[in-house]
Amino acid sequence: MKRYSPQHKCWEQTLAMADRGLQFGDGLFETIRRRRDGGIPLEALHLHRLESGLVALGFGKKLANDVSDIVKRALRGEVGAGSTGLKIVVTRGEGPRGYAAPVPITPAIYLSEFDAPELLAPPGISIGESHVRLGHQPLLAGFKHLNRLEQVLARQSFEDGWDEALMFCQQGLLIEGCMSNVFVKLDGQWITPELSVCGVAGVVRQWLLNSHEEITITGIERSSLARCEGMVMTNSLTGVRPVGNLSGVPLSIPAEALQWQAEYMRLFDER
Amino acid sequence: MKRYSPQHKCWEQTLAMADRGLQFGDGLFETIRRRRDGGIPLEALHLHRLESGLVALGFGKKLANDVSDIVKRALRGEVGAGSTGLKIVVTRGEGPRGYAAPVPITPAIYLSEFDAPELLAPPGISIGESHVRLGHQPLLAGFKHLNRLEQVLARQSFEDGWDEALMFCQQGLLIEGCMSNVFVKLDGQWITPELSVCGVAGVVRQWLLNSHEEITITGIERSSLARCEGMVMTNSLTGVRPVGNLSGVPLSIPAEALQWQAEYMRLFDER
Repeated sequence: MKRYSPQHKCWEQTLAMADRGLQFGDGLFETIRRRRDGGIPLEALHLHRLESGLVALGFGKKLANDVSDIVKRALRGEVGAGSTGLKIVVTRGEGPRGYAAPVPITPAIYLSEFDAPELLAPPGISIGESHVRLGHQPLLAGFKHLNRLEQVLARQSFEDGWDEALMFCQQGLLIEGCMSNVFVKLDGQWITPELSVCGVAGVVRQWLLNSHEEITITGIERSSLARCEGMVMTNSLTGVRPVGNLSGVPLSIPAEALQWQAEYMRLFDER
Repeated sequence: MKRYSPQHKCWEQTLAMADRGLQFGDGLFETIRRRRDGGIPLEALHLHRLESGLVALGFGKKLANDVSDIVKRALRGEVGAGSTGLKIVVTRGEGPRGYAAPVPITPAIYLSEFDAPELLAPPGISIGESHVRLGHQPLLAGFKHLNRLEQVLARQSFEDGWDEALMFCQQGLLIEGCMSNVFVKLDGQWITPELSVCGVAGVVRQWLLNSHEEITITGIERSSLARCEGMVMTNSLTGVRPVGNLSGVPLSIPAEALQWQAEYMRLFDER
């Protein structure tokens, strides 16, 4: 993992312990899939979410845009080409002791590379339901911020054989998976949870919504899952994954799920 | 700031970028006031909260106890004596990519020192009310974990002249201050909010509850603050601070508030 040095305008192997990312989780991240040829099909969606999140954290539009430009250059190969997985962490950088944000903000940008998993997923994954209920926080909902203890706790209690787990909010509505977004086919209609009070608005979710107008955003009660006709989980790294088993009960895989999975994989065909 | 090296059994100036504290806020912290002679009056309460929090995060009792022992040695002067302020950060250390916690856990322990503020506070602080509502998360409530974006956002919107701000939960109950706990005198009775779904259970709060049985823990509606007869905010570093002004309205300072402030200061008299 490397850190961008604004002074030296290069990536270095340093990290400040007083970084507010460590102290308070005061920052955001993006996990990105890149083609071997360097192309990033969902780049615009990643950068848009990152910028919106920085503005929500009070960075200001100008600074959010500057950070986005640095990240864009990094994504396009300024740091190592070839890796298919990239993780970008942006924090508010160092500051004096205490919650008060430093003025001006000198953001810290971290980047790590890894090999993303193969996109040839099995036809259907097996998932369960997490007992960890997501807290409501409309000021942070949708953003991929660094306060992720709910996900850490949820991941810790996965049962054997679970590839993912559904997470519900404190009021019992379906929100997302631990590391994916979720789409449910109900009464012949594909729907995905509304994320205004909690959850991460994933870029694959947004890409699917943009390209398939038939999908609607709505509140989803846990009880309605009993008559679910199909489900997919989405995530930048693993793509679109149909669900084949929900809490031990086999689930049929609708044709649309396989079609979306194939569409995502085509984005990453080498050109 | 220094990091404890389990290999070298000493404190070093290193930090791993893959630390889950930075990646997910996967850890806890303690902010501690120390006497100039090295004594830490509330040491047992700090260590108890730290250990309970580590167990809540899934560290296991044995490991939580080992970490607590290292911290105890550090608090007692293994690292620099003389500073009156200490901050300890304990994270789950490094792990492979993703939310899944490494097994076994190799915790990272960070320590920083600073001069705590003088305890001679003005007779009454001025506070406001934050628009940031705390999300409910019973699995994490009470612990001083590293997911602190709610506090960062709240601190950012302090108005001029505010020393602190009251924070309410998503359902509108009073919970705490941005960086303190709160005690309210209502109908002649001192009360402090119940913290089972959100909030940090401060050690000064616990010390006051232990030594003053007349204080009760209860739910506190925002509307009841209109007939508040006195208020104090508590925090390890700043001690017990009576509130003299709430949202622009002067508040009288009950004798008990000044007495508790004096009692806290006496804990830090040099012996």
